[in-house]
Amino acid sequence: MNIAFIGTGVMGRGMASQLLSQGHQVSIYTRTKTKAASLIEKGAEWKETIKACVKDVDAVITMVGYPDDVDDVYRGKQGLFRYAPKGSLLIDMTTSSPTLAKALYKEAAELKFRLLDAPVSGGDIGAKNGTLSIMVGGQAADVQAAMPILECMGEKIIHQGVAGAGQTTKMANQIAIASNMMGVVEALRFAEASGLDTSNVLKSIETGAAGSWSLSNLGPRMLKGDTAPGFYVEHFLKDLRIALEEAKKLDLPTPGLEQATSLYEGMLENGMGQLGTQALYAYYQNLS
Amino acid sequence: MNIAFIGTGVMGRGMASQLLSQGHQVSIYTRTKTKAASLIEKGAEWKETIKACVKDVDAVITMVGYPDDVDDVYRGKQGLFRYAPKGSLLIDMTTSSPTLAKALYKEAAELKFRLLDAPVSGGDIGAKNGTLSIMVGGQAADVQAAMPILECMGEKIIHQGVAGAGQTTKMANQIAIASNMMGVVEALRFAEASGLDTSNVLKSIETGAAGSWSLSNLGPRMLKGDTAPGFYVEHFLKDLRIALEEAKKLDLPTPGLEQATSLYEGMLENGMGQLGTQALYAYYQNLS
Repeated sequence: MNIAFIGTGVMGRGMASQLLSQGHQVSIYTRTKTKAASLIEKGAEWKETIKACVKDVDAVITMVGYPDDVDDVYRGKQGLFRYAPKGSLLIDMTTSSPTLAKALYKEAAELKFRLLDAPVSGGDIGAKNGTLSIMVGGQAADVQAAMPILECMGEKIIHQGVAGAGQTTKMANQIAIASNMMGVVEALRFAEASGLDTSNVLKSIETGAAGSWSLSNLGPRMLKGDTAPGFYVEHFLKDLRIALEEAKKLDLPTPGLEQATSLYEGMLENGMGQLGTQALYAYYQNLS
Repeated sequence: MNIAFIGTGVMGRGMASQLLSQGHQVSIYTRTKTKAASLIEKGAEWKETIKACVKDVDAVITMVGYPDDVDDVYRGKQGLFRYAPKGSLLIDMTTSSPTLAKALYKEAAELKFRLLDAPVSGGDIGAKNGTLSIMVGGQAADVQAAMPILECMGEKIIHQGVAGAGQTTKMANQIAIASNMMGVVEALRFAEASGLDTSNVLKSIETGAAGSWSLSNLGPRMLKGDTAPGFYVEHFLKDLRIALEEAKKLDLPTPGLEQATSLYEGMLENGMGQLGTQALYAYYQNLS
């Protein structure tokens, strides 16, 4: 298929690369051309504008930063609602607001686009290897039509419901992670402050009822003082803010999410936004 | 070996049963004789007093309820420090206070007992199948001597350090679980309130970065409204109170643990102490 890919950050690069290696024609548009170099080498065509990028494509994938960026890419003067071919599939894979996803879907449908929200989990490794989990919201027929594309990028692709359901599922994912990060940090700090051999403690606790992806994957990085970003604090915080806002709309109490969000807000205020989320371990030193 | 087993609740029963089936002589003492019936059938000898139970044994295992019970079983007028054979191994497998474990160890050493703190994780299933994770604190030589006994009950047995280190490791385990329970509950409630198919949401999120033992094992019970105890709220709360107290002694900030503990305190106040910890899902209905 002819596919336009908008946004080639660390996630987008891996995903677009999968599309290329599975034989799709991919044109790309991104704000920083240097970020597209490796894709251009692999055969992607770089375009100067969204308008040029989406000319005659069958589908457009967007993987940008914040909900405002999504809004701009779809509704902006240079955006997809103006320039994408009528009838094309528009697939927003950015983690963004469920409310925005629903609103965009409605407008897209009126304009005869087939819009899906399809955020992912699995990180840069999952993107690179085409093993992402993809959570999809939208019309069943459109999900079916998008499957050959989504299957290039993900292993577990689940249609979660109508427009917005993909984003809502991703928010549930982030809500589960948020509180667990506090648990992992507090457990390991407790072990360390007690003078135990923390790697032995990890061995005792990671396979039982305390076990989690974060404990096994981020715990060792915390203990080594490795704060390099797998997933940026500032991006996680974006997600948590959206989740809190949506929870409020639903009138749901979320004391754990609130506590975790306020810690990550503190990290941002302390200049830690571009560290990995596991730097929460270091940030706890600042608390009293 | 001749082993005395004190405390045959749901965990103790499974553990003592493993000792019996692996050829040890087991005498048992427990407050409620009916709870010992299945063990007596398997060949355990029931005794009326601790004094009678520990006569001529090589080792004593204690698996009781609260730190006060541990205190009483060891230091009480009818207790082990008075009646256990000098030189015997005393192994407290109750989840209890690290501070108490250290104090008991000191007294035990003066009285020529070889005391270990060796709490477990893995639940009633792990106890029944002999697959517990056992976190051990005490002298290395005593841990070695206890290994043939511990290996009957557990698969992962790690010597975590000096007296108290087993309990400290178990506290780290409970701290990790505490905050994660909030995350799991809030994520699933968010999905449910948003009108999604929660079992599909679980499928999307449980194998990625949000994945955890609690999400995969307790999540489905939460969604079914199954509040039957695997692990009692009141026992978990006991652990969380100990953990909070120890964290305060270490001057460690634990906002997640504090939040989770206050929720479980609320459950106890609302008569939910004898439900399983996953009933937190139902309790969230009471919050606003």
